[in-house]
Amino acid sequence: MFNRVAIIGLGLIGGSLGLALRQARAARQVAGFDLYKGIGDRARKLGAIDQSCASLAEAARGSELIILATPVGAMRLLLQQLATSASPGAVVTDVASTKAQVISWAEEYLPATIPFVGGHPIAGKETSGIEAADATLFKQCVYCLTPTKRTPPAALERVAALIDALGARMRFLEPPEHDGMVAGVSHLPFIASIALMQTAALNPAWDDASILAGSGFRDMTRLAAGSPEMYRDICLTNSETITRWLTDYIAVLSTLRERIAAHDVNLGEVFAQAQKARNAWQVVQEKAKNGDQK
Amino acid sequence: MFNRVAIIGLGLIGGSLGLALRQARAARQVAGFDLYKGIGDRARKLGAIDQSCASLAEAARGSELIILATPVGAMRLLLQQLATSASPGAVVTDVASTKAQVISWAEEYLPATIPFVGGHPIAGKETSGIEAADATLFKQCVYCLTPTKRTPPAALERVAALIDALGARMRFLEPPEHDGMVAGVSHLPFIASIALMQTAALNPAWDDASILAGSGFRDMTRLAAGSPEMYRDICLTNSETITRWLTDYIAVLSTLRERIAAHDVNLGEVFAQAQKARNAWQVVQEKAKNGDQK
Repeated sequence: MFNRVAIIGLGLIGGSLGLALRQARAARQVAGFDLYKGIGDRARKLGAIDQSCASLAEAARGSELIILATPVGAMRLLLQQLATSASPGAVVTDVASTKAQVISWAEEYLPATIPFVGGHPIAGKETSGIEAADATLFKQCVYCLTPTKRTPPAALERVAALIDALGARMRFLEPPEHDGMVAGVSHLPFIASIALMQTAALNPAWDDASILAGSGFRDMTRLAAGSPEMYRDICLTNSETITRWLTDYIAVLSTLRERIAAHDVNLGEVFAQAQKARNAWQVVQEKAKNGDQK
Repeated sequence: MFNRVAIIGLGLIGGSLGLALRQARAARQVAGFDLYKGIGDRARKLGAIDQSCASLAEAARGSELIILATPVGAMRLLLQQLATSASPGAVVTDVASTKAQVISWAEEYLPATIPFVGGHPIAGKETSGIEAADATLFKQCVYCLTPTKRTPPAALERVAALIDALGARMRFLEPPEHDGMVAGVSHLPFIASIALMQTAALNPAWDDASILAGSGFRDMTRLAAGSPEMYRDICLTNSETITRWLTDYIAVLSTLRERIAAHDVNLGEVFAQAQKARNAWQVVQEKAKNGDQK
């Protein structure tokens, strides 16, 4: 059990972490800080934190675990400030979906007395903000940790205890490996979604066509409703691998376009392959979840 | 009220039509025919049809409304056969998501005594087949009709009565106009989904990366699990407009790729525009549904 945990950034993820920790009685006190005034009070009323702090320093003071749950771009400054405001021995972790950049900032700014463990829970929702927070968001989700050779085992253990309290499934990855894979299965999807929304909205027929858009369009553009700041920061901190995945995606689309333009009757086989891959993925996902529940 | 309605093709859409018609008591008898043996009996047991027929001719005989709910590619042959097996005065309609090609077949094969009305309910689900059929699938959905100058008003009225019984919202469109818009909001999304699934599955890291794929990936690849035959037929019968939309989509993606590769800090504005467009679309959709419920 933690004595005091600080959550910095009280959006969907930060708020859900607080709710989950408090409901699991995994921390005696959960302190929270958010840059936007009023969010902290809202989080306290919703039961996500015990104490709403007016500054990063106030939240960090005396906390043995400090969780950064802001867009990744804000983490650079937060890590600089934590170098002096965190108590020695405190473990700092984050939840950003790009890891290499955050880790390089942490290793640049934090002293050895304040160890950092990069983390990334694979969890999300179509809605953002504290109002969308959900204590069960991390249940059975994959929670990546990306320790480096500088990460002390004791710090890793502290974050493993957090993951345990959340009911998530821990997975260790090298930071560049993590960023490369997540670029494909998480960042590419949101860019594909945004591009689809943009393609539709820029079309002269959009006003009329929008009425014909059904559940397929709804699902395929859901991610486009996500936080622009979060997406921008992800693109800026994982630019190289995202660009590579986008090149692959555009190549696949271009081949499909050629085959559709040529009235290729074998298109059904390509579609059947994709269907098979999708079904296989779903089976693996379900097995992984059920396996862990035993 | 209809005396007898025939549904040809008892998948998700055909089955749901039957369930909805029977639950609304809009037809004294619903006859059904499916090419795959056993599906008709299953549909009868599920309450989607009253009578499972062994042939198209048996289903069509005496039916005043014949609904084609097969993949669009199969409709050519069905229309040829209906020219002789449908009773004079029967109205034929379809539910395919491409209209120009089907209408040209109908006008080629059906005599003037058997009028055709092109239709397209904007409704779907992630699952297909009779087991996924749902009586409420069409409630409040947009149901497009694409009459031509050859469509008799009485035939149109018959299909309007069907749409009324389903609780759907009727909308008239010119066939090419329909096909152009649906290519953008329905066909492009499923191709984007299939291409995303393929891009991920073809990557050497897919086995490991697939474990990191969460709800965003799940939603963005949901359409890839749909029927390959249906998708193929849609591409073959709407090739030109789909190709055009794909060109636009690839151009938007290529611009995003360039900006991401260049670490463009203004990316957030592009993402905010997409977010705004998505939210505006959702508001319009909800208004349309609520407006009709009054």
